[in-house]
Amino acid sequence: MRSEFPSGSRLRLPSTLFLCLLLLIPGVGSGEALAEEPASPVKVLVTYHSHSGNTERMAEAVVEGAKSIPGTEVLLKRVGQVTADELFSADAVVVGSPVYWSNMSGEVKTFFDNWQFKFGVFPELKMKNKVGAAFATGGQVSSGKEVTMLTILAAMLGNQMIVVSGGGAFGASATTEGNSPGIDNQELADAKALGRRVAEVAARFKAGSAK
Amino acid sequence: MRSEFPSGSRLRLPSTLFLCLLLLIPGVGSGEALAEEPASPVKVLVTYHSHSGNTERMAEAVVEGAKSIPGTEVLLKRVGQVTADELFSADAVVVGSPVYWSNMSGEVKTFFDNWQFKFGVFPELKMKNKVGAAFATGGQVSSGKEVTMLTILAAMLGNQMIVVSGGGAFGASATTEGNSPGIDNQELADAKALGRRVAEVAARFKAGSAK
Amino acid sequence: MRSEFPSGSRLRLPSTLFLCLLLLIPGVGSGEALAEEPASPVKVLVTYHSHSGNTERMAEAVVEGAKSIPGTEVLLKRVGQVTADELFSADAVVVGSPVYWSNMSGEVKTFFDNWQFKFGVFPELKMKNKVGAAFATGGQVSSGKEVTMLTILAAMLGNQMIVVSGGGAFGASATTEGNSPGIDNQELADAKALGRRVAEVAARFKAGSAK
Amino acid sequence: MRSEFPSGSRLRLPSTLFLCLLLLIPGVGSGEALAEEPASPVKVLVTYHSHSGNTERMAEAVVEGAKSIPGTEVLLKRVGQVTADELFSADAVVVGSPVYWSNMSGEVKTFFDNWQFKFGVFPELKMKNKVGAAFATGGQVSSGKEVTMLTILAAMLGNQMIVVSGGGAFGASATTEGNSPGIDNQELADAKALGRRVAEVAARFKAGSAK
Repeated sequence: MRSEFPSGSRLRLPSTLFLCLLLLIPGVGSGEALAEEPASPVKVLVTYHSHSGNTERMAEAVVEGAKSIPGTEVLLKRVGQVTADELFSADAVVVGSPVYWSNMSGEVKTFFDNWQFKFGVFPELKMKNKVGAAFATGGQVSSGKEVTMLTILAAMLGNQMIVVSGGGAFGASATTEGNSPGIDNQELADAKALGRRVAEVAARFKAGSAK
Repeated sequence: MRSEFPSGSRLRLPSTLFLCLLLLIPGVGSGEALAEEPASPVKVLVTYHSHSGNTERMAEAVVEGAKSIPGTEVLLKRVGQVTADELFSADAVVVGSPVYWSNMSGEVKTFFDNWQFKFGVFPELKMKNKVGAAFATGGQVSSGKEVTMLTILAAMLGNQMIVVSGGGAFGASATTEGNSPGIDNQELADAKALGRRVAEVAARFKAGSAK
Repeated sequence: MRSEFPSGSRLRLPSTLFLCLLLLIPGVGSGEALAEEPASPVKVLVTYHSHSGNTERMAEAVVEGAKSIPGTEVLLKRVGQVTADELFSADAVVVGSPVYWSNMSGEVKTFFDNWQFKFGVFPELKMKNKVGAAFATGGQVSSGKEVTMLTILAAMLGNQMIVVSGGGAFGASATTEGNSPGIDNQELADAKALGRRVAEVAARFKAGSAK
Repeated sequence: MRSEFPSGSRLRLPSTLFLCLLLLIPGVGSGEALAEEPASPVKVLVTYHSHSGNTERMAEAVVEGAKSIPGTEVLLKRVGQVTADELFSADAVVVGSPVYWSNMSGEVKTFFDNWQFKFGVFPELKMKNKVGAAFATGGQVSSGKEVTMLTILAAMLGNQMIVVSGGGAFGASATTEGNSPGIDNQELADAKALGRRVAEVAARFKAGSAK
């Protein structure tokens, strides 16, 4: 079974050679040109709403996961305290919410609304091409965590963000009541996995965009 | 208003120098290492189910949009005819479906099921990091096109794909009955925009991953 | 092709006879027992958030549709002004929202959150068995109206309400930009159809529950 | 805090009296009129797809719950074996699916497609006003059970069915891997609760419609 994709692959040697020679020139290789590209850190904003502290614990684990990727800088903030500059200067944004009535909380939804009403994201599409992801906590197993994460991702897609999962099919989540009350170790591990994935994808996309 | 992201950015000059020296060695710079990276085309698989021909027309416009990005190779196939190799060798996959009862058609859903049953995508997560997107056609305005696109994206997220919209908040879509029967020019333009966006994001991500 | 449902149907004549005899006793038939049952009007609460006035126009048409069913009383209120008593004394609740970032607005989401925080709907499940429905307005065709209606219905399902559509697959909706700006006649007709359907289903369910 | 609903409630004594007198006439009260109304059983169709047997176990518990409501007749069938007559003669339909890639299985989706392609549900809307509900099983906690149930309900809403939850916010569900592999007692209890709720709501709605 062979792919039907045509296999042509044109070499682009001259431009690579040129780049390398350029890099070898003192003052270029050691200077701005380089610094802007691989050296520029990937900025991840982790923002959340938490009433009981459960979503906050997940947020901290997302931060931990993102920080484990070298070259990542992470900012952790409650949704109500994020500034326009923090939002628009991030390379990736991870949003977490408790489940209230099968959906993100009103506080998190209002945060998204404020992307336009307070921060004026539109019509410039200022969030375009940033990486986005979601996490959620809820009391019961199948009572809104999926919808919460998917609608966070839907808000991001409407902003032309690039969306990933991690630590679960739609993002990281925790069931906070029942057999395992609060946030258990597996749920923290999922949140860390989400943070790592977001940082990795954002780093690759940023590196590819800088070319 | 200043970002609170820390601004540290460490240079990685030594590794860059090493790479450049490596590239200057004959037989390396002119050979496989380079050929695999910037020269390798971005492969986009556009696959769909179409009963009336409407979704097929949208699919063709997605292809046209993707092809407009230099360095992109596009394969157009009905979902039932996609092979494992075509699926797994793609850098991006765009899936289109008519709306049947507020969701993708059974034929498209069965295609996703076959990713596992026929193609064995799991446990290796063979679709991981491919770019994914969706398009949909439906008779009425708000009768399932969003759900169809979102659940296509949800299937992709479960496979750890990287998901984008384009030509609309969740992807490109067309309303095929009512005031503007069939596929009109705006809907075709949206489908092209989706194809372009998928090819662009896949190209950036691939370039960044090759580093 | 015959149904495989067993066809047994036991008569419940004695209890019906007893009820009739009871109704014929003066002071029972003319009193509270009867008054509470077929004569009690079906109360429909139509509540919404509107910034531009579009969702308000749809709300008014929902009201008109509901009122067209004899024996229906309708209350129209902005979400921020609904009291606990208005919410809990309704037989049916129809909630409308503009689309903000692919979902209901923060103001509507906060209204749902307040079912618990302000009104204490839980743990008694005070909304159980009320009929629920949704309507939405949005600028573009497939940019969140479905998600808005479905997540309104999801919030209602979490409250064990009984959910219906009407005027569209998930409820009534209007696209307020593009070829037909604002609310057109077809969209108003859909909103009226939703109001009628909610009132009819609520009436039947109430009549059946009173037995 | 007083409701703003108007409190008028007109007595409809004469019609009640007439009904009672009618019922007391031999040959009416003991005959067809009565038999059609409270005596006619509520028919619940429980239908599912199951690969591993997990969804089948849940289906059996839904059946058990529905049967616990007096006057309910229940038919249990795999989706591929349901006939048009079985579907259209039911008062309520409960559909269960395993989660395949964040959504119902292709087999269940094809069942819904066949409502039109094989059974011709449209344009007469033959499922209108039947009660609908959903259940789902999946390996992981937040990996598609909600989406599966919600999209089953969305298909039902598109058919103008009357939708309820039960045993969970969107229906009954079971997580079949992890700490509690297979179907545990709580999950069976949820499935029974769903069956009971569907039968109860369908009975009330049918009784109210017969008036």
